[in-house]
Amino acid sequence: MQLTRRYRFSASHRLDVASLTPEENRRLFGKCNNPYGHGHNYVVDVTLEGSRDVSGQLAGRQELDSYVTQKILARLDHKNLNADVAELASVTPTTENLALAICAMLKKEWPFRADLKRVRIAETERNIFELEAK
Amino acid sequence: MQLTRRYRFSASHRLDVASLTPEENRRLFGKCNNPYGHGHNYVVDVTLEGSRDVSGQLAGRQELDSYVTQKILARLDHKNLNADVAELASVTPTTENLALAICAMLKKEWPFRADLKRVRIAETERNIFELEAK
Amino acid sequence: MQLTRRYRFSASHRLDVASLTPEENRRLFGKCNNPYGHGHNYVVDVTLEGSRDVSGQLAGRQELDSYVTQKILARLDHKNLNADVAELASVTPTTENLALAICAMLKKEWPFRADLKRVRIAETERNIFELEAK
Amino acid sequence: MQLTRRYRFSASHRLDVASLTPEENRRLFGKCNNPYGHGHNYVVDVTLEGSRDVSGQLAGRQELDSYVTQKILARLDHKNLNADVAELASVTPTTENLALAICAMLKKEWPFRADLKRVRIAETERNIFELEAK
Amino acid sequence: MQLTRRYRFSASHRLDVASLTPEENRRLFGKCNNPYGHGHNYVVDVTLEGSRDVSGQLAGRQELDSYVTQKILARLDHKNLNADVAELASVTPTTENLALAICAMLKKEWPFRADLKRVRIAETERNIFELEAK
Amino acid sequence: MQLTRRYRFSASHRLDVASLTPEENRRLFGKCNNPYGHGHNYVVDVTLEGSRDVSGQLAGRQELDSYVTQKILARLDHKNLNADVAELASVTPTTENLALAICAMLKKEWPFRADLKRVRIAETERNIFELEAK
Repeated sequence: MQLTRRYRFSASHRLDVASLTPEENRRLFGKCNNPYGHGHNYVVDVTLEGSRDVSGQLAGRQELDSYVTQKILARLDHKNLNADVAELASVTPTTENLALAICAMLKKEWPFRADLKRVRIAETERNIFELEAK
Repeated sequence: MQLTRRYRFSASHRLDVASLTPEENRRLFGKCNNPYGHGHNYVVDVTLEGSRDVSGQLAGRQELDSYVTQKILARLDHKNLNADVAELASVTPTTENLALAICAMLKKEWPFRADLKRVRIAETERNIFELEAK
Repeated sequence: MQLTRRYRFSASHRLDVASLTPEENRRLFGKCNNPYGHGHNYVVDVTLEGSRDVSGQLAGRQELDSYVTQKILARLDHKNLNADVAELASVTPTTENLALAICAMLKKEWPFRADLKRVRIAETERNIFELEAK
Repeated sequence: MQLTRRYRFSASHRLDVASLTPEENRRLFGKCNNPYGHGHNYVVDVTLEGSRDVSGQLAGRQELDSYVTQKILARLDHKNLNADVAELASVTPTTENLALAICAMLKKEWPFRADLKRVRIAETERNIFELEAK
Repeated sequence: MQLTRRYRFSASHRLDVASLTPEENRRLFGKCNNPYGHGHNYVVDVTLEGSRDVSGQLAGRQELDSYVTQKILARLDHKNLNADVAELASVTPTTENLALAICAMLKKEWPFRADLKRVRIAETERNIFELEAK
Repeated sequence: MQLTRRYRFSASHRLDVASLTPEENRRLFGKCNNPYGHGHNYVVDVTLEGSRDVSGQLAGRQELDSYVTQKILARLDHKNLNADVAELASVTPTTENLALAICAMLKKEWPFRADLKRVRIAETERNIFELEAK
């Protein structure tokens, strides 16, 4: 059985690969390469898989919310992904790389009996990334 | 190939484990343990898996709607999950347990050529449960 | 200029007019009259009208959220509208009456420079009530 | 890792199997068999699976949009699925058959490093079809 | 106080003004002029304005649903707006004209104590029409 | 009669009033004052009011889209509202000020027979601003 809980945060970023020329970056990322950045309302779905505990739940909602708030939302909400997030300092903050970073941040001290199954992040309602956490 | 059809119902419930103390229930379920209950607009997605019949469909929409209405909606819509649903009488009506009950209700006399693949129930847009029906 | 801020709460209720017979109540309210109640995820939109202050805002988001949480959400979220809300004790908790109660609760000690313009409450995505606050 | 990108088109269709009698078609398809057709706003989700390239992306958004526009949207948007689409000429344009046609159209000259993993098409928010592309 | 109730139907149409040349129609309507038509999932919001009756409601939900189903949905759902709807026979079925027709159909034998205040019809989530019913 | 057409853009901003101290800005704007900015997916609804032309429309969709794209989207999409938009250079880019700027940009060379009635901008689904254009 799987439980998915949805979270939201707003952040800005700019896509630019340091080793490429401005022309290459512009061709690769289009307006996502605009010099002063832009931003999104990100939607993160965290999926757990496991069995029910004595309370009939996969995980306590308050414990889960408190963990995700501390590990993810407090670090990403109303932040600039290029400037404010250590895990993204050495990579281009594409949503692919952001999904990998979020997944790693969640797994590091995962305290729940149920497993972290999947992380899904939507940058806009048209642009969605999904990662099995294994 | 999979066909998913979406249904909605509104119901109330209260989360409380009889064998625990009021303090333990309060700590476990927070405001979901409030004495007079609360409620939700539930969204149920029923997914079938199989191959197309002569009409080019996995299952007739009218037959599927009629089956789900009789087995699920007629029994849960505008009801109290603690008081009105026999399958939930001996368990805490968490959405995890509700998903299991809905899945069992659907499988019992499943009349379609295509298999019941999955049941997904959203309690709110932030709280989603998914169960492989196997 | 108008600013609308959206809030959510989950509650249960039962529609029944004490002065009518069970048959009349059943005819009037259909399954909303079911004996043990049901519930909804309510969406409340609070609209302010006025002009910008020195910060370029109609009202501070944190002050507004804190006021609506104290006056509305803390009293209605995860509650039973028939049993838990004094303002609804002597009326049937239709969403029309709920909208009037919410509007009155908000107006009572309204602390903002901008006016309370309108309250809108959606019981489901199909059932919406709107009230000018004057 | 999976990337899903969402597209929309509006089209009309009529469900009718040539080898069946009018009565059988009516029973099979209900109002979807009405003589002059009807239509929908279709939502298509195209899912790719693979690894990140040098830009930190599974695929360039502009290349993907341009490919899906040419292969799918230019051929289906504001069209009649019975009259305008060669791939559907010999089958009933159920959404099951439409999903198969879209999947085949996308796979034919697939130019991306990442694989086409899945196609999902929603005819309405209640009626959703999903196909593994393999 | 206003009550809004939401309804949905699916229909097809083609935009073409008989008195204009094919070139003029093409320029005016773009792909909405494609010869075999296309279609949409329409969303209709019907808004009533008035005061509460003895039941605490502006209007009975079942009576309102039954009236709108008979006057609007039974005549438009899964139909072709050019071929199937007498009120649209002599005009181009733009959504502007459809909104006017729906409003007139609803007003003709309006049986409710509360007034019909407004009709709003969304052709897609991007294209919305609103008409005061007076 | 009113026609509303919906547009989307993604941008970043930082809220900070130059004449105030860092402490005052922090208290006023909370995390919207974070030093490196953040961003949103903005939704803009442009509403026209008027009567139907010979084509049965309030305005041509293609002309309207082309005007809004040139005046608004080309200037705001994937931009930084503090750094990239001349109209916001001397004010704090709150969404109140952004709504005023968008409204002025649209009115300047408004070419349509129907009037610009209203501009509505949603910063998130919880934070909505509406301005009568008069």
